[in-house]
Amino acid sequence: MSHRSPLAPDRFPALPAIAGVRVAAVSAGVKYRGRADLFLAELAPASTIAGMFTRSQTASAPVEWCQSILSRGRARAIVVNSGNANAFTGREGREHVQMMVGVTAAAIGCRPKEVFVASTGVIGERLPVERISRAMPRLVRNLSERAWEDAATAIMTTDTFAKGASATAVIEGRAVSIAGIAKGSGMIAPDMATMLAFVFTDAALPPGVLQSVLARAASRSFNCITVDGDTSTSDTLLLAATGRAGNRRPASASSRELGDFRRALQRVMTDLATQVVRDGEGASKFITIDVSGATSWQAARRVGLAIGNSPLVKTAVAGEDANWGRIVMAVGKAGERADRDRLTIAIGGIVIAAHGERRPDYDERKVAEHLRGQEIHIEVGLGVGRGRARTWSCDLTQDYIRINADYRT
Amino acid sequence: MSHRSPLAPDRFPALPAIAGVRVAAVSAGVKYRGRADLFLAELAPASTIAGMFTRSQTASAPVEWCQSILSRGRARAIVVNSGNANAFTGREGREHVQMMVGVTAAAIGCRPKEVFVASTGVIGERLPVERISRAMPRLVRNLSERAWEDAATAIMTTDTFAKGASATAVIEGRAVSIAGIAKGSGMIAPDMATMLAFVFTDAALPPGVLQSVLARAASRSFNCITVDGDTSTSDTLLLAATGRAGNRRPASASSRELGDFRRALQRVMTDLATQVVRDGEGASKFITIDVSGATSWQAARRVGLAIGNSPLVKTAVAGEDANWGRIVMAVGKAGERADRDRLTIAIGGIVIAAHGERRPDYDERKVAEHLRGQEIHIEVGLGVGRGRARTWSCDLTQDYIRINADYRT
Repeated sequence: MSHRSPLAPDRFPALPAIAGVRVAAVSAGVKYRGRADLFLAELAPASTIAGMFTRSQTASAPVEWCQSILSRGRARAIVVNSGNANAFTGREGREHVQMMVGVTAAAIGCRPKEVFVASTGVIGERLPVERISRAMPRLVRNLSERAWEDAATAIMTTDTFAKGASATAVIEGRAVSIAGIAKGSGMIAPDMATMLAFVFTDAALPPGVLQSVLARAASRSFNCITVDGDTSTSDTLLLAATGRAGNRRPASASSRELGDFRRALQRVMTDLATQVVRDGEGASKFITIDVSGATSWQAARRVGLAIGNSPLVKTAVAGEDANWGRIVMAVGKAGERADRDRLTIAIGGIVIAAHGERRPDYDERKVAEHLRGQEIHIEVGLGVGRGRARTWSCDLTQDYIRINADYRT
Repeated sequence: MSHRSPLAPDRFPALPAIAGVRVAAVSAGVKYRGRADLFLAELAPASTIAGMFTRSQTASAPVEWCQSILSRGRARAIVVNSGNANAFTGREGREHVQMMVGVTAAAIGCRPKEVFVASTGVIGERLPVERISRAMPRLVRNLSERAWEDAATAIMTTDTFAKGASATAVIEGRAVSIAGIAKGSGMIAPDMATMLAFVFTDAALPPGVLQSVLARAASRSFNCITVDGDTSTSDTLLLAATGRAGNRRPASASSRELGDFRRALQRVMTDLATQVVRDGEGASKFITIDVSGATSWQAARRVGLAIGNSPLVKTAVAGEDANWGRIVMAVGKAGERADRDRLTIAIGGIVIAAHGERRPDYDERKVAEHLRGQEIHIEVGLGVGRGRARTWSCDLTQDYIRINADYRT
């Protein structure tokens, strides 16, 4: 494993216990040695669940399983291994999912269709499922309400730090809690969950409501980040709600009583998503991109991601080079409406160009100063509408190449 | 300038004179010192022209000019500078195009609307157009029928070698010749011409026919390559036909008599396009990607480009790592129909996976041996249709980052 990302937070945050949720992590030896690589979350009876998955046409066997049981909206367990994605493993891969589900259901005492599975790691290699089965009794014995950091560590692959976030909210006068963990570092792109993330709440929420609030929060968090524009076969985002907070169940995702919860969930998911970017493979700078003046929110997001995905923008940031022409280029290629002669570009709050021309008083030294920092801010005004979106990316460094040119060796 | 790409051909090819075309290159000092950076092609009266341009929403002033005069179908000159793209330069940029056009028209003795312009280099900086004006008399004096290598060198930016190609064909019993030059190394992606390329022929072809044959040849050459998925604001591909070969003018691009010419043009343009990939910034390996079994040719091309654009596939090739799971990932993210359980993947002719599973007899050592070479061949069978396409890319190395993290310094 690499040294810790320079953009990592100081420490893993203190996450609260979520009533009705117990978690555990153990070392099953799937691939990595000497570290936990198997994670289990046990959910109280009657817990509801929502999920979003990769849109890859070559989705992994675990993703297919989760998609097949999601419409039931019920879950009792989530089991996750790192080190092997069980993707592109054919019929045997599907059998291995069934074995993971079966052994987990037996250990927890639930039905197989209440067990969600995720696997992350190398694609195309046989999952040593027998090691997972062997570790299950130990895993169940370790279940506790507070083992969040162990859990977040067990799902890591090329991640250099464990990722967690939490928030509290009020629904109809009842305090509810949200806690989540995530992993992701490379093969990160929007258009799906783009990594693994498991979020838990003690709120009582019907499955349909849960799915709606999750989809909305994901669209402005996990689907607004990019590291390398590549799309995993395994992306899985699950939100489980145990109902133990005892709030009255809202009938609709848009009900006013859910406003505080929606905002808290958005904070948790944005926190997790930006942690993934901060752990982007080889990243040395975190980039926040604000696009405004687009024809719609979706258009703004697409332009933001075009900037955040551009190798030339990302290498310029890595080189602390105020090469803002590359931002013009990325806006131009995004495929959304833009008007060159209305474009405004700012870096670090310094307006470089407005109305399609460099400002006569532009002082590159100030932008260069900003680029020497770790937190980079790019603002683009398109001037053609009112849509705005914030997206996040990281720079592209020599270390990205080093990490990925010999991932398996 | 960097050392010559390891994938460069041994030498610049011998290109024939094209009757009715004279070319020249001089050093105007636009940005680079001690090398030619200004190119002029003079075309005989009555020459026809066709063109394709970047689809960027922030296209440069020269691109807009060329687009505005293209429908006339006539050209007497093409003038090109390197070192400055004259892009995102506002009203002044447009005036500078007019000045380049005016001084060229005066020097050649033609109308301004018969002068095509291209500029390539840094975006957003004022073009020192007066240096171009000053160099014009020298440029015109230097016009000759054979200065192809000088011309190809003058249009280079981060290119490490000059790019040229030629072919001959027969139209209605008359021999015709084709010669072309191109530049491009980074900011290379399909969906437009993706670089500068100027192709000349002595064939007699009406503008509409010329545009049709050019569009078709581009779709299977320049629009089938990628280096970094970024899209220039300046991409320009022009095909000029002087008519000096004296062939009977075919009425339609699809006429049988044009078959040999179409194939020859395809060869020239594919040769130029793959030379651009071979000069991909930092490239150490040239990748040919054959996708078959897609629902259409377009779908096959899109899957091929998704593979060729994937940073994870490109870094794996750079690292000589037989990480074929990343090809599965890239197929999955392409957005085209694919069936995981029918997918076949081969590298270097060695079938790794078929019908959605790794072959039991797969020997990674053979693939690793292939990956140690410079010419990498990836084949993907989707198994859902009859569409097939060949695309080209290069690997992603530390040198790409090094080149682009300090392009301007």
